[in-house]
Amino acid sequence: MSKAVWIQHAAQLVTMHLPEHVGPRTKGDMSELGLIEDGSVWLEDGVIQAVGTTSELKEIYESRAQEAEIVDATGHLITPGLVDPHTHVAFGGSREREFEMRLEGATYMDIMNAGGGIHATTRMTREASEEELIEQTSKRLDSFLAHGVTTVEGKSGYGLDLETEMKQLRVMKYLQEHHAIDLVPTFMGAHAVPAEYKGKEEEYVNLIIETMLPKVAEEKLAVFNDVFCEVDVFTPEQSKRILEAGKKLGLTPKIHADEIKPYGGAELAAEVGAISAEHLLKASDEGIEKMAEAGVIACLLPATALYLREEAARGRVMVDHGVPVAISTDCNPGSSPTTSMPLVMNLACISMRMTPAESLCAATYNAACAIGMEDKVGSIEVGKQADLVLWDVENYQKLQYLFGVNHVQQVWKKGVQVVG
Amino acid sequence: MSKAVWIQHAAQLVTMHLPEHVGPRTKGDMSELGLIEDGSVWLEDGVIQAVGTTSELKEIYESRAQEAEIVDATGHLITPGLVDPHTHVAFGGSREREFEMRLEGATYMDIMNAGGGIHATTRMTREASEEELIEQTSKRLDSFLAHGVTTVEGKSGYGLDLETEMKQLRVMKYLQEHHAIDLVPTFMGAHAVPAEYKGKEEEYVNLIIETMLPKVAEEKLAVFNDVFCEVDVFTPEQSKRILEAGKKLGLTPKIHADEIKPYGGAELAAEVGAISAEHLLKASDEGIEKMAEAGVIACLLPATALYLREEAARGRVMVDHGVPVAISTDCNPGSSPTTSMPLVMNLACISMRMTPAESLCAATYNAACAIGMEDKVGSIEVGKQADLVLWDVENYQKLQYLFGVNHVQQVWKKGVQVVG
Ligand SMILES: [Zn+2]
Ligand SMILES: [Zn+2]
Repeated sequence: MSKAVWIQHAAQLVTMHLPEHVGPRTKGDMSELGLIEDGSVWLEDGVIQAVGTTSELKEIYESRAQEAEIVDATGHLITPGLVDPHTHVAFGGSREREFEMRLEGATYMDIMNAGGGIHATTRMTREASEEELIEQTSKRLDSFLAHGVTTVEGKSGYGLDLETEMKQLRVMKYLQEHHAIDLVPTFMGAHAVPAEYKGKEEEYVNLIIETMLPKVAEEKLAVFNDVFCEVDVFTPEQSKRILEAGKKLGLTPKIHADEIKPYGGAELAAEVGAISAEHLLKASDEGIEKMAEAGVIACLLPATALYLREEAARGRVMVDHGVPVAISTDCNPGSSPTTSMPLVMNLACISMRMTPAESLCAATYNAACAIGMEDKVGSIEVGKQADLVLWDVENYQKLQYLFGVNHVQQVWKKGVQVVG
Repeated sequence: MSKAVWIQHAAQLVTMHLPEHVGPRTKGDMSELGLIEDGSVWLEDGVIQAVGTTSELKEIYESRAQEAEIVDATGHLITPGLVDPHTHVAFGGSREREFEMRLEGATYMDIMNAGGGIHATTRMTREASEEELIEQTSKRLDSFLAHGVTTVEGKSGYGLDLETEMKQLRVMKYLQEHHAIDLVPTFMGAHAVPAEYKGKEEEYVNLIIETMLPKVAEEKLAVFNDVFCEVDVFTPEQSKRILEAGKKLGLTPKIHADEIKPYGGAELAAEVGAISAEHLLKASDEGIEKMAEAGVIACLLPATALYLREEAARGRVMVDHGVPVAISTDCNPGSSPTTSMPLVMNLACISMRMTPAESLCAATYNAACAIGMEDKVGSIEVGKQADLVLWDVENYQKLQYLFGVNHVQQVWKKGVQVVG
């Protein structure tokens, strides 16, 4: 493996380590940063070997004869690598011209007539070869890394037929093996009803349940099964059928819930035991209570709200009511074409009134929990993957306060420096 | 001077050059990008020597024996260096802890009692030595350059006494001479009423008019004179007196207008012949009409609106009604702690419904007009300063569509590469 790296003298080392706590955090626990001043970390064999103050680590390592690259982090903040628990990163094509048309006054129908919207991405994803999709997705993952993100969840759902859904999942599997970033795959055949099934929605639901899900499970191409539960997309009943079918095959449920209209999505998430519910802009008070009781993680997407000019989800209320909150870019070509988790953290503070500490927890440890990766990533603890970010600010407050700027200076993934 | 640079094969070279047009642009003129495909630029002696297609420039230069560094811009967008026409960049200290306190539930009075708010920045700016202020401001200018900004306006207004206002202006003069960026100075003694003049506002207005303005003019430390015309700050009558006094001394008026409440600021801008009016979140329809008639540039600050969770200014309406629109970060420690003009461009599209082309015009040519610099910067034309940005996107639409990301790859200031 690579040479050891010894980081010393971090102005603030935010470990996110909460010794007595297991599982997703909420309320006051989200503000526990495990902050060490004059912090130090020893990375070796891809893993964190020691964490403490610089003088504590000097006591351990200066007597040994081990060689390490020394990184002087004086004046810098260090955090765990960020985790983005909700993206649609493996898609074909780009829709910037549609963005411009809208601003030039085009209507929804103008866009549709010009071949735009989600069906445009479905078409471009179907048309792309596996190699093309790998290349396009790989560039987006590079951008994630450059923004301090070392673990990403990725969903299928722009294929909407067996062949292309499998292609998206294979692309993600390839990238998990060949790209530095960790990429956790989610099957989302129920992202939209494909044009060819219009008026035959139940048939498409059956196709997902009878054909797609078994194939995905058989080839072990996904960990999660996600559904877009929304008016005019999939009903709560259809969503439940799809999620229960996935559960029987070992796929953990996730739900795109209550984004556009209140539709009982948060409640359904609690009922089926989803690991997380996504968006939640219009989640009801009752839904929030049920999520808190069931321990469902709210995966909130404030960049999407900004892009769509919607009021952001009630992050502050959810934290205060005991829901564990994670945040994400929602990276996708239609409603959030961004890879910037730093901006998402800023918006968690600005738009959702979460504190800088809560925002950081939502982008690291809780985000890892939302994709079942908290044993490996999301905090700086001995034995975990050596995924770290060194920022060009000296404290975690500035990371959120000096907004709209990517403060990443260096990134290590599994102990290897990949940025800076 | 430095060696010549020959940029070739830009996928899109956005010159912003409109041959038949002089002065700030509005309506359809804001969409005229002067776009050249397979574009090429020759930079020498700090100045743009030739602009055209790559084959046009090859005809001119391949016969000559001139040496140049070749830059292959295949697949890249090139634009003029961005211009930020409204910042408060030369301030002391940082207020991230106040940002956190607010999100933790502190009230306005809690913040004031903890020594926060604008008076905190005034105190820290007064306490900072000239060297400290130069160092802090210089770092912010580095960040502007890294975001593609090659010209910045900067205001005094955190001194609020003669000595410190002069110190802020001297700091900017020093940086104009020693930092790569162009820094255009504005006197803004009327940024707030200092604590020691509470209840004696007229006395402070007299101090500005009788003491500060003559001194600033005598030492030629500012080009513009700006006033915060707002309820509980300076009345329209006080603002007018201050601006008229500045005019007599050769300082061109600017006005912070109608930010918090409609207060006749836009109308006043037209009446006194201000070069620009700032913020304008609450500008009246009549004010917008008067600005259009008088040719006052609207300097809009959508990042500030985002940070304060206010509805952004009516950029779309202003462009359609014939107001020339510029955009800016408003970089300041209280209401917009950012240096990202790329994000501001994104927000002009997302929040103000301006098109990608209009947004770019507002951040380059119109921004240059707003600070009287359009003869030197803001477009790629023969004879102008060689200030250019090469972006890691291939078209201008993606620059706005892939939002929240700093797409800057290389920056040239006066023909010298300063970023990348
Ligand atoms: Zn999604
Ligand atoms: Zn201002």
